Amino acid sequence: MQGIDALLLSVGPDLPWLTGFAAMAMERLSMLVLPAEGRPQLILPAFEADLVHDREAVMDLVPWAETEDPIALVSRSLGAHRAGNLAIGDHTWSRFLVALQAEMPDARWQQASNVISSLRAQKDAAEIEALARAGAGVDRIAAELQTGEIPLIGRSELAIAADIEARILANGHRKVNFCIVASGPNSSSPHHHTGDRVVQSGEPILFDFGGTTAEVDDAPGYCSDTSRMIFTGEPPVEFAEAYSALQAAQEAGVRAATVGTAAELVDSAARTVLTEAGLGQYFTHRLGHGIGVEAHEDPYLVGGNDRPLAAGNAFSVEPGFYIAGKWGARIEDIVVATDEGPRRLNNSSHELAIVEA
Amino acid sequence: MQGIDALLLSVGPDLPWLTGFAAMAMERLSMLVLPAEGRPQLILPAFEADLVHDREAVMDLVPWAETEDPIALVSRSLGAHRAGNLAIGDHTWSRFLVALQAEMPDARWQQASNVISSLRAQKDAAEIEALARAGAGVDRIAAELQTGEIPLIGRSELAIAADIEARILANGHRKVNFCIVASGPNSSSPHHHTGDRVVQSGEPILFDFGGTTAEVDDAPGYCSDTSRMIFTGEPPVEFAEAYSALQAAQEAGVRAATVGTAAELVDSAARTVLTEAGLGQYFTHRLGHGIGVEAHEDPYLVGGNDRPLAAGNAFSVEPGFYIAGKWGARIEDIVVATDEGPRRLNNSSHELAIVEA
Repeated sequence: MQGIDALLLSVGPDLPWLTGFAAMAMERLSMLVLPAEGRPQLILPAFEADLVHDREAVMDLVPWAETEDPIALVSRSLGAHRAGNLAIGDHTWSRFLVALQAEMPDARWQQASNVISSLRAQKDAAEIEALARAGAGVDRIAAELQTGEIPLIGRSELAIAADIEARILANGHRKVNFCIVASGPNSSSPHHHTGDRVVQSGEPILFDFGGTTAEVDDAPGYCSDTSRMIFTGEPPVEFAEAYSALQAAQEAGVRAATVGTAAELVDSAARTVLTEAGLGQYFTHRLGHGIGVEAHEDPYLVGGNDRPLAAGNAFSVEPGFYIAGKWGARIEDIVVATDEGPRRLNNSSHELAIVEA
Repeated sequence: MQGIDALLLSVGPDLPWLTGFAAMAMERLSMLVLPAEGRPQLILPAFEADLVHDREAVMDLVPWAETEDPIALVSRSLGAHRAGNLAIGDHTWSRFLVALQAEMPDARWQQASNVISSLRAQKDAAEIEALARAGAGVDRIAAELQTGEIPLIGRSELAIAADIEARILANGHRKVNFCIVASGPNSSSPHHHTGDRVVQSGEPILFDFGGTTAEVDDAPGYCSDTSRMIFTGEPPVEFAEAYSALQAAQEAGVRAATVGTAAELVDSAARTVLTEAGLGQYFTHRLGHGIGVEAHEDPYLVGGNDRPLAAGNAFSVEPGFYIAGKWGARIEDIVVATDEGPRRLNNSSHELAIVEA
């Protein structure tokens, strides 16, 4: 493991991705100590040990009673590695890292993603199919929005979002990760907090939503994420033209996402199209993020990331333009880099849908 | 601030509790740098800055563009304090702490809860009323279970939990934090994962559920948490007797929870009753946890915690017994220590409810 003596994993997606077991996010520490050689040990609250007895084939359980100190047990599990190179799970609460550092002052720390994220980023066939199923689930909802099946005009963003969230759960997901409904001028805020603004006629609405599918046996759930635009009536020429440029930029980004292409060049392929249309200054975020068991993970399609895409990388391609106080737009698909070229996992229409209901 | 030069707060409840602003849990860092003296600075993604412009009266915004390094901006905001005593928010992702430590090798780190948790633990009148409203919400659901309004026999734990979760949201909560439905032998697992077991006649069911209420203006939401027991038919004498001891233990715990009493003595007041009934070995967890904007927070009612309760402390009192593979039980109320004595915030019946539907 690249000079690392042990991995320490707690909350976050690495642990369920590796083992099928998820630590509860709480003040009682559950932590897997995974040495470079030797058997993993799972330190966990004693009264939860009955939930994981079936995992004793692959790891030793080290239960701690309510009046014991789990930090000391992690240190004991590490043995001589407590003065070694340790990699801590990215999402582990800092309170535990601070306590571990006090307990083991000679250890050298790095983030576990240095080891794990490139593994997680290369999806195998089963993972790609899981992402495709998740994508098909949100595509159905996008189509329901585009065909006017979900009423929009006269309803609040929050009411519309509640409809979408219920449909995310009804379409193969275990949980909703986010649901942005940004209407009218709110569409100019990329991470708009969906609120009580009522949708009017003659304005754009930006939708960006996704969730995590249910676990299957010990396989964790996988994430969906898509963005589509609707105009409540005929759009002004200025918006329609900008949207066409956005659509071309998104196409260019997808086409550029081939195995071996540096991540930042995929970003610039899309960005160039918007810049040439005079919209470059309004595209204020990176082109995309990796996706898998986590909604955002490696690889990131962003200036400065010169790592080439590998077969099995899955990521969003989501250019946008945001003109403060006026309007904005984004189109987003999940794409997989394959040896046969980029494969889109979102396939609802990319046209600007006109919905007058 | 107790020798601390600056607080660094990101995800988790401290930031919204202090400021009303919550950082998104994601790979893009949002972090408030709060020096012991001087103006706070909020480092955040540039394209989210429009969401917080209304906070510029109380903090400076330090937006970072997608190709900038937020860690370097945090270090710059700290100035000379980058070699000082820094307290990091307990839930901050370790990847950010590891990166901050590499950027500022001379800093000394501790957890922010050393400063904040005793402040958060002393609830003011408005916070206590918010907790009481949350408690009244779940009490209504407990009563609906106890009166048989929610069908049990012949339904799976998950189906019953879905009913309860919908009612949590319908009773003043913005989100469900957990919903344990543990039937028959599953009741012997304190943190049972609610599953597809179908409820039978003639067995105990342990319910433990709670959520977080909606934010009001800039005030964050507050949590509820209650546990009640139902028997689907007449209980065997052995169970009924153990339940009576549990009820007495819970009463003893609540009565002991007076201002000035050491937290561990509240635990032992309840534990002694169960021990005298021969059930001490089956009470495998601490008596309780503090509650507020977070479902579990200080003070913890556990052996080894000799800190005296203060007026305004809010916490659970939740003794239980768990006999592996057979059955278990728990009764839980949220209680506030006040100068007039302990005040229960959960007031549904503490009796063992008999429900035959």
